[in-house]
Amino acid sequence: MTESFCTFKSVGIIGKPGDPAVCQLLEQLLPILKEHGCRAYIDASSVTNNGYCENLRVPFAELLDSCELIIAIGGDGTLIHVARALAGRPNIALMGINRGRLGFLVDVHPDNLREVEQVLTGNYVIDERFLLTAQVHHNGAHKTTQPDSAVAVNEVSIHRWNTSRMIELSTWVDGEPLSDHRADGLIVSTPTGSTAYALAGGGPIVHPNLHAMVMVPVNPHSLSNRPLVIDSRSQVEIEVHAEFIDRVRVSCDSQQDLALSPGSRIIVRAHPTPLSMIHPPGYSYFNLLRAKLGWGGPPRELHASA
Amino acid sequence: MTESFCTFKSVGIIGKPGDPAVCQLLEQLLPILKEHGCRAYIDASSVTNNGYCENLRVPFAELLDSCELIIAIGGDGTLIHVARALAGRPNIALMGINRGRLGFLVDVHPDNLREVEQVLTGNYVIDERFLLTAQVHHNGAHKTTQPDSAVAVNEVSIHRWNTSRMIELSTWVDGEPLSDHRADGLIVSTPTGSTAYALAGGGPIVHPNLHAMVMVPVNPHSLSNRPLVIDSRSQVEIEVHAEFIDRVRVSCDSQQDLALSPGSRIIVRAHPTPLSMIHPPGYSYFNLLRAKLGWGGPPRELHASA
Amino acid sequence: MTESFCTFKSVGIIGKPGDPAVCQLLEQLLPILKEHGCRAYIDASSVTNNGYCENLRVPFAELLDSCELIIAIGGDGTLIHVARALAGRPNIALMGINRGRLGFLVDVHPDNLREVEQVLTGNYVIDERFLLTAQVHHNGAHKTTQPDSAVAVNEVSIHRWNTSRMIELSTWVDGEPLSDHRADGLIVSTPTGSTAYALAGGGPIVHPNLHAMVMVPVNPHSLSNRPLVIDSRSQVEIEVHAEFIDRVRVSCDSQQDLALSPGSRIIVRAHPTPLSMIHPPGYSYFNLLRAKLGWGGPPRELHASA
Amino acid sequence: MTESFCTFKSVGIIGKPGDPAVCQLLEQLLPILKEHGCRAYIDASSVTNNGYCENLRVPFAELLDSCELIIAIGGDGTLIHVARALAGRPNIALMGINRGRLGFLVDVHPDNLREVEQVLTGNYVIDERFLLTAQVHHNGAHKTTQPDSAVAVNEVSIHRWNTSRMIELSTWVDGEPLSDHRADGLIVSTPTGSTAYALAGGGPIVHPNLHAMVMVPVNPHSLSNRPLVIDSRSQVEIEVHAEFIDRVRVSCDSQQDLALSPGSRIIVRAHPTPLSMIHPPGYSYFNLLRAKLGWGGPPRELHASA
Repeated sequence: MTESFCTFKSVGIIGKPGDPAVCQLLEQLLPILKEHGCRAYIDASSVTNNGYCENLRVPFAELLDSCELIIAIGGDGTLIHVARALAGRPNIALMGINRGRLGFLVDVHPDNLREVEQVLTGNYVIDERFLLTAQVHHNGAHKTTQPDSAVAVNEVSIHRWNTSRMIELSTWVDGEPLSDHRADGLIVSTPTGSTAYALAGGGPIVHPNLHAMVMVPVNPHSLSNRPLVIDSRSQVEIEVHAEFIDRVRVSCDSQQDLALSPGSRIIVRAHPTPLSMIHPPGYSYFNLLRAKLGWGGPPRELHASA
Repeated sequence: MTESFCTFKSVGIIGKPGDPAVCQLLEQLLPILKEHGCRAYIDASSVTNNGYCENLRVPFAELLDSCELIIAIGGDGTLIHVARALAGRPNIALMGINRGRLGFLVDVHPDNLREVEQVLTGNYVIDERFLLTAQVHHNGAHKTTQPDSAVAVNEVSIHRWNTSRMIELSTWVDGEPLSDHRADGLIVSTPTGSTAYALAGGGPIVHPNLHAMVMVPVNPHSLSNRPLVIDSRSQVEIEVHAEFIDRVRVSCDSQQDLALSPGSRIIVRAHPTPLSMIHPPGYSYFNLLRAKLGWGGPPRELHASA
Repeated sequence: MTESFCTFKSVGIIGKPGDPAVCQLLEQLLPILKEHGCRAYIDASSVTNNGYCENLRVPFAELLDSCELIIAIGGDGTLIHVARALAGRPNIALMGINRGRLGFLVDVHPDNLREVEQVLTGNYVIDERFLLTAQVHHNGAHKTTQPDSAVAVNEVSIHRWNTSRMIELSTWVDGEPLSDHRADGLIVSTPTGSTAYALAGGGPIVHPNLHAMVMVPVNPHSLSNRPLVIDSRSQVEIEVHAEFIDRVRVSCDSQQDLALSPGSRIIVRAHPTPLSMIHPPGYSYFNLLRAKLGWGGPPRELHASA
Repeated sequence: MTESFCTFKSVGIIGKPGDPAVCQLLEQLLPILKEHGCRAYIDASSVTNNGYCENLRVPFAELLDSCELIIAIGGDGTLIHVARALAGRPNIALMGINRGRLGFLVDVHPDNLREVEQVLTGNYVIDERFLLTAQVHHNGAHKTTQPDSAVAVNEVSIHRWNTSRMIELSTWVDGEPLSDHRADGLIVSTPTGSTAYALAGGGPIVHPNLHAMVMVPVNPHSLSNRPLVIDSRSQVEIEVHAEFIDRVRVSCDSQQDLALSPGSRIIVRAHPTPLSMIHPPGYSYFNLLRAKLGWGGPPRELHASA
């Protein structure tokens, strides 16, 4: 037997709000953490008080200040929610236990908590993902209750809102004009997001280790469009044409909307500090593509064979 | 018990050449046919002589003259091979037992021969599919060993041959110029073929009961292309530009090539008589789309959910 | 000289509301109508009173009752607005003079009113287009200010509304289950609409003379999706899953929304009477594809040539 | 007047073979070179002897040894032909004068030789592009007249050859299995090639400054496929399944084929030294996308507007 030792001394646990299975998982997970000498913190805002772990419950902000590793129990949405809060905190690692539907990012199956043990003993894969920041530069006075900037793990999406009609917007890359678009919207995606909404919009799959952003026009009203892949060090600027400004929303990961005003510009660029994701040993991105997206091979062939 | 009666008095059996499993299936199938009072004919050219049914073996042409139903044992390729031979013989019905990889057209599973019994008792679904004819009109003298016309169940495909470069061709629909194409080729597909090569080329799925053809440019060297769906009563003409004529092949269902010569035109139109396919009761085209193509629903969803 | 005679004895004129150029065009158009013995009616609701034709202005409803031909001056949106009002009135023909951006349906250029004269002398092309009806069948009590049914020229679009998240819906064709969809929405399009929103969603181009509908999932959250072309005599049913019912809108041509309620089903089928569109002589659909969509040929080729 | 000085002391000229316009351009170009103190070399193998410049004609190999800048007169194919020969010679720059059809890479218009003068005076944009090498590793004895390795500017393409049927192949990235493919072929493209054959195959546009490769399955016989963008430092391995080995060709830029044998693997990776392309001042990649591909904006919008 190899003696197990704990790489992560303090572990925070965040759950999908309202999911009763989170508490059940906690009953299995807390003894494992204890056994490996990890101090556990439980997010009071997302995990229901189930009684026996009341003393571990702390506010989310305190949890962030105390932990070296955060385990998100839920779907990709839960993990993304945490990841966005981790922006600028490169010393906190993040892993996920899948309670969601697809779980592209939360790759530990709840029936396989042995993988958590492996991680706690230092046997894991570190996977750095860059994030995006979206910042709205207003052109003059404006009032809004929404923030002017936010972080995105998957994508910044500009899309029509409260209208059945398309919108028009202009784009620049590193200050150079790129194009005018008449479309339902535009997605600026990280490689992480290339298997999320950008994929639904027709974008390519981009390997997570590539420092690239994908710009995907959504339902472009032209035949002459195609997704564009650019360097992640580039700065993308988007200006929604003034007449559509009330019919547009800017959304980060479908979780946080930003305030727009006439003449405002949305600046999208890579966040300076990456997210450290933790995977169990044996993690393979290509396995995920095949298993969760059905990408590539059998058994879905089409053509007639004699 | 309902008394079984035989709708098809004479049944021909054609196999995927060289597949030993065909003979094994015959041992199960022949008693069923006999039990239902069907006279059986076995295609001597495709089914190996396994001894005990030697007296049933007849040449393919004789089999066509004698049978009301043909059962093709193999993959879609085997069935298509037979279906092409049935063009112009609307009184012969065709069904398939799946020994191939995908089996979009051959829908009886070999472990489920009870479905054959259902068919023989008159309990089946008739599914008429129209076929295409491709005919080359030469412009002057030419010599070739290939025929000038052929029938297609899935598609007529014009594609580059023996070259790594694209080809150029012009198209007309009902005498009206449609477009010039620079591409690897062009597919003219039936609805049946819309789930075969045309799908690989990016074409839409077309329900088999629709009297429509799909024109799919293959790897078009232009952003401004899109598959085109037209009436099956239309006549499509294709002329490969003379400089590419030696680097092009016209293929029907990837089974029969046609002769081209400089200035020749390929005329594609619907065959005057349809093919009668027979399915077991309960046949559902949409089921096939979901089961064999994974079309649509779960479990292959993409987006993050909280 | 051929003596001109008037096929259409009464012509109604409808304009893009608020477009001052409509009045200018009227000054050219009215003398032409008079010269050809046509009685002119001007839609009071869309065409500004410019003084000299005050006596021709009538309410829209009266115009519909009086005219054999309606000329829509504007973009495709203006023409579609009129076409929807013409549903069920097969004896009124419709043509368009292009004052819009693209003008796929309004094919007379305002500098070429000679084409209107040709039409008035009986020299024209009739082009029958079928329309869709969308009808919401509620499941129990509900209250809403929106109607339960409407007509569409281009498409019936079910799409997410007031949300950055996808929706889920189920579809049936002729009572048979088709698929569950997780997507931003679903488009059911006519051939006419296949060059409008359905094209932006990735659908094929469908020739207007084909009696087919196209079902296009919009940003489907699955790789295994493809547009589906079905017979226009089919009936499409769509049910939005109850949890998304407040975040969905059903829209006909982006002009008319329908009321949804939990458990309601949207039935889409072809309208019993077609729309008669009138084109000047020489009209060619394929010309339109090339000229207005840049479909196909030069000058947008891609590949390197030596 | 600014005094002009020559950055490139020796300039080689290569033409599209057999193009008479090359000689005419030479008559304009040679005086310009002379005026700027450049020594000119003319490729004897591609440029016809037109008499007056006979003394400048040298073999291609000698030209490569002598020049600091090569000007290719022709289309992208001509420039790519030269660029492949420049692999491993980072000190030779390359620019193109467009005599071809599209000219995505050859960006000086022959009517605008003033741009050549600007370049000769040191006023230009350097644009480094990485190249690919494809190397076939044989598994045992084999004999072939084709080479085992070659360089590609645009793409390495594995595609079916002499067959109307699809092929099957397996892929690895950095030693990890990626997928099995049933398709007409597979393209591994540079960013430069992303606007060439990879675009025809449905790939995204990749900005030339991004160190990425695109893998594009060509006509994949599955719905579950999507182009994949990976780091250019990755190594791609492809193995064509043995039964298809006689029906496959590996081609670099459609200019050089490689030898395959049963069990052989094709290794594709970035070439260690980049290509230095020279553009006139004001060069903009996004301008090229709009002008030559019609990418993005007007005038090709689709949707109806009122």
